[in-house]
Amino acid sequence: AQSNVVLYGEADAGIGQRYTMDDTGFISNYSGTSRWGVRGSEDLGNGLKANFNLESGTIDLGSGSVGGNGSFNRQAWVGVSGGFGSVMMGRTTTAQNRIMGTFDLNDTADGSSALKYVGLAANGSFGGSRQNSQFQYATPKMGGFEARVSYVFKDDRGGSPNKNFLQVAGRYSGGGLTVGAAIQSKLSSAPDNRTGYALGAKYDFKSFVISGLYTQRETKAGGKGFGLGAAVPFGNFTVGLQAARLTDSANKAYEDATTFELFANYKLSKRTRVYAAYGSLNDEAELLNGSTVNGVRVRSAEDKTFGIGIVHKF
Amino acid sequence: AQSNVVLYGEADAGIGQRYTMDDTGFISNYSGTSRWGVRGSEDLGNGLKANFNLESGTIDLGSGSVGGNGSFNRQAWVGVSGGFGSVMMGRTTTAQNRIMGTFDLNDTADGSSALKYVGLAANGSFGGSRQNSQFQYATPKMGGFEARVSYVFKDDRGGSPNKNFLQVAGRYSGGGLTVGAAIQSKLSSAPDNRTGYALGAKYDFKSFVISGLYTQRETKAGGKGFGLGAAVPFGNFTVGLQAARLTDSANKAYEDATTFELFANYKLSKRTRVYAAYGSLNDEAELLNGSTVNGVRVRSAEDKTFGIGIVHKF
Amino acid sequence: AQSNVVLYGEADAGIGQRYTMDDTGFISNYSGTSRWGVRGSEDLGNGLKANFNLESGTIDLGSGSVGGNGSFNRQAWVGVSGGFGSVMMGRTTTAQNRIMGTFDLNDTADGSSALKYVGLAANGSFGGSRQNSQFQYATPKMGGFEARVSYVFKDDRGGSPNKNFLQVAGRYSGGGLTVGAAIQSKLSSAPDNRTGYALGAKYDFKSFVISGLYTQRETKAGGKGFGLGAAVPFGNFTVGLQAARLTDSANKAYEDATTFELFANYKLSKRTRVYAAYGSLNDEAELLNGSTVNGVRVRSAEDKTFGIGIVHKF
Repeated sequence: AQSNVVLYGEADAGIGQRYTMDDTGFISNYSGTSRWGVRGSEDLGNGLKANFNLESGTIDLGSGSVGGNGSFNRQAWVGVSGGFGSVMMGRTTTAQNRIMGTFDLNDTADGSSALKYVGLAANGSFGGSRQNSQFQYATPKMGGFEARVSYVFKDDRGGSPNKNFLQVAGRYSGGGLTVGAAIQSKLSSAPDNRTGYALGAKYDFKSFVISGLYTQRETKAGGKGFGLGAAVPFGNFTVGLQAARLTDSANKAYEDATTFELFANYKLSKRTRVYAAYGSLNDEAELLNGSTVNGVRVRSAEDKTFGIGIVHKF
Repeated sequence: AQSNVVLYGEADAGIGQRYTMDDTGFISNYSGTSRWGVRGSEDLGNGLKANFNLESGTIDLGSGSVGGNGSFNRQAWVGVSGGFGSVMMGRTTTAQNRIMGTFDLNDTADGSSALKYVGLAANGSFGGSRQNSQFQYATPKMGGFEARVSYVFKDDRGGSPNKNFLQVAGRYSGGGLTVGAAIQSKLSSAPDNRTGYALGAKYDFKSFVISGLYTQRETKAGGKGFGLGAAVPFGNFTVGLQAARLTDSANKAYEDATTFELFANYKLSKRTRVYAAYGSLNDEAELLNGSTVNGVRVRSAEDKTFGIGIVHKF
Repeated sequence: AQSNVVLYGEADAGIGQRYTMDDTGFISNYSGTSRWGVRGSEDLGNGLKANFNLESGTIDLGSGSVGGNGSFNRQAWVGVSGGFGSVMMGRTTTAQNRIMGTFDLNDTADGSSALKYVGLAANGSFGGSRQNSQFQYATPKMGGFEARVSYVFKDDRGGSPNKNFLQVAGRYSGGGLTVGAAIQSKLSSAPDNRTGYALGAKYDFKSFVISGLYTQRETKAGGKGFGLGAAVPFGNFTVGLQAARLTDSANKAYEDATTFELFANYKLSKRTRVYAAYGSLNDEAELLNGSTVNGVRVRSAEDKTFGIGIVHKF
């Protein structure tokens, strides 16, 4: 059958000041992720489909540069789906990413996400948001429940001390409630490594949404912590507040790193929105996100950030 | 609303000898610019549109290599347009490029353009034809008049001694006449820098077109000079002659650099044309375009160039 | 006229062990070639068409990385076609590739091809499967016969001792029989170089197909040799066996390098297939494909390979 091939993407630009900037200027990908991709699906009959996705980014609209030198470093997989669920083979987002991302109420906005700046990004704190050489299985949705398993062979991870990669994540949604959990097997036999897990819950009261996420990172230095958020919709407007804290870390200098994020989004259409966001870091969070000078990590340039801009999906 | 996404591009290849080649061989992008891109527009209602453009090139058809390692280094922007005009945010062609390019009657053909080889390219002599991190505003067309302003924050240009970038350009077309002007603010506080400007005029007598452009570059080494051209259409054929001279430069060795360009284009369709072009450089222009050997600029390989080929837009 | 622009590609991933792998793991491009491209054709009237093709790959679905750093290193050409045949200008597959590839019954599967692992790939043993800066002419099909000539200027090949590149290939198909031949002019005046040629024949008995290819490489170190294969279709299934031997080489250590390939393909649709393949190398073939340690070539990791996976064309 004819493949249904779609060329798609996203573009984000605006004005603001990132934590890493000394002054106000052009920003890109502060809220969304500029990228382009091709995806498609072919009906093979008997309820079976062949699927693929190639996606390249992040595109910095400031310079046009593309992450990974223009490789398909966001998505590069082929697979099949049917009544049994779906299988993807290749580089793609992890089970955690696809299941737990929903617990950041501002979709892990790169410039301001509270969870991200304490190292506990909802969409991928366990060894990153993507993995190479994955075999990923997703169950079909069953009465509001869905789960994913992703696996990478040890030898595809560079061999010892790295281990086979196994990540399992599941989510249930029903009656306004969403709960989810993800578990990450030990990634390496190095002493800092351990089993990681994340637990999230979200409730939609219609007039507002609240969300909470607790994460134990897969490394002791990565630590443990939580995020809390609330968002209020007014027609096409949404405003929200999120906070996150690293409660515990093998690196004591980062303990109690705390971040805030205030955000507003206005939908011009289903595909296009205007955003504004503000974020702040306490001293420990500044250090955690700081740069390294002569081998010593120092605070980043700024403890506050703001951005306004536009995100257009195509 | 659904985005109207278009995949487009151009491909140019042929046979000839560039100024930089020792012998006849394969040429690409002698007259056109091989590239590919994605652009689109979404109707947001109330006369408002969201627009974007990602464009990658120049593609050398000789090897398939892509300028900027496959980044979207030609266009990478998002913006909105409406009755007020349009705003673009990102990497894109400058106001000068979009307004003044029309005064080169052979569309700044890379292999032969007379203006380009004295450093006064109609489509971008002020700090290049593109800028990163631009905010660019274009007025709507008002009775034949249109104008553009482009702005880049100083900090997005690497900070001092660089300055905020401001370029303004406007053009009027009516009754066969086109006149245009562009002005470039001082780009840096370094002593060689100054305000740049360009003035162009073109008249279409139907049986032929004449065009003239005077430019003061934004650096004293870049200098000042002019170009003159005439083109004659015969049905799908156009033949033309252009000349350019650098009348004045802080680098006296380049002064009076003079170039000629003879060109012919034959339209096979709206999208496809066959081209032939011939160009020549005087001694000063050869030096201006020469390469550097042991720190001393020497004449380029050849003082003449020619090319024949095909350009196909898709 | 409107260009007919098509976005197309292929994606291949699975599980197996390449000759170069120490253990079982993720494989990509074992049987097909992951890639993406844009191609199009414009009707210019009078039977004339403008054509182009840009194609990028090989994409490794394991990491998303793209060969040639995302350049269009597979196809980058523009040309015209009509009753006279077609002309392509740019980087593209050689005449040998386009004419002789058919004599590998498993389409030169990268992971297992018997011919490829003795250095005699049906789709491009003469200086590689692609060339930069080609002018390639293809005759129209005339009663089952077609031929191609490809030419590259000496100066576009880096000049002396390299020579002008000339490759001619032709093929006849009729009544189940396909015969083909390709000839490669001397690529360099260096002493190891000579005229290369290849001769192939294939017969389709309906219940099975047999194929044979004899090749003299364009270098004496590349040597001479042959491949033989048979394939049997069962509905959507095809199983086949191929063998190849390097009978003669200036490098005596590689002489009698011999390879086997057993393959099975199952078509899920016209665009999607599942594959399984197994290959083996004798000692000389292991050395020929080995890696270099301290300047001495040593046997590759494994003398056997296998892979199972899926190839989807879009």
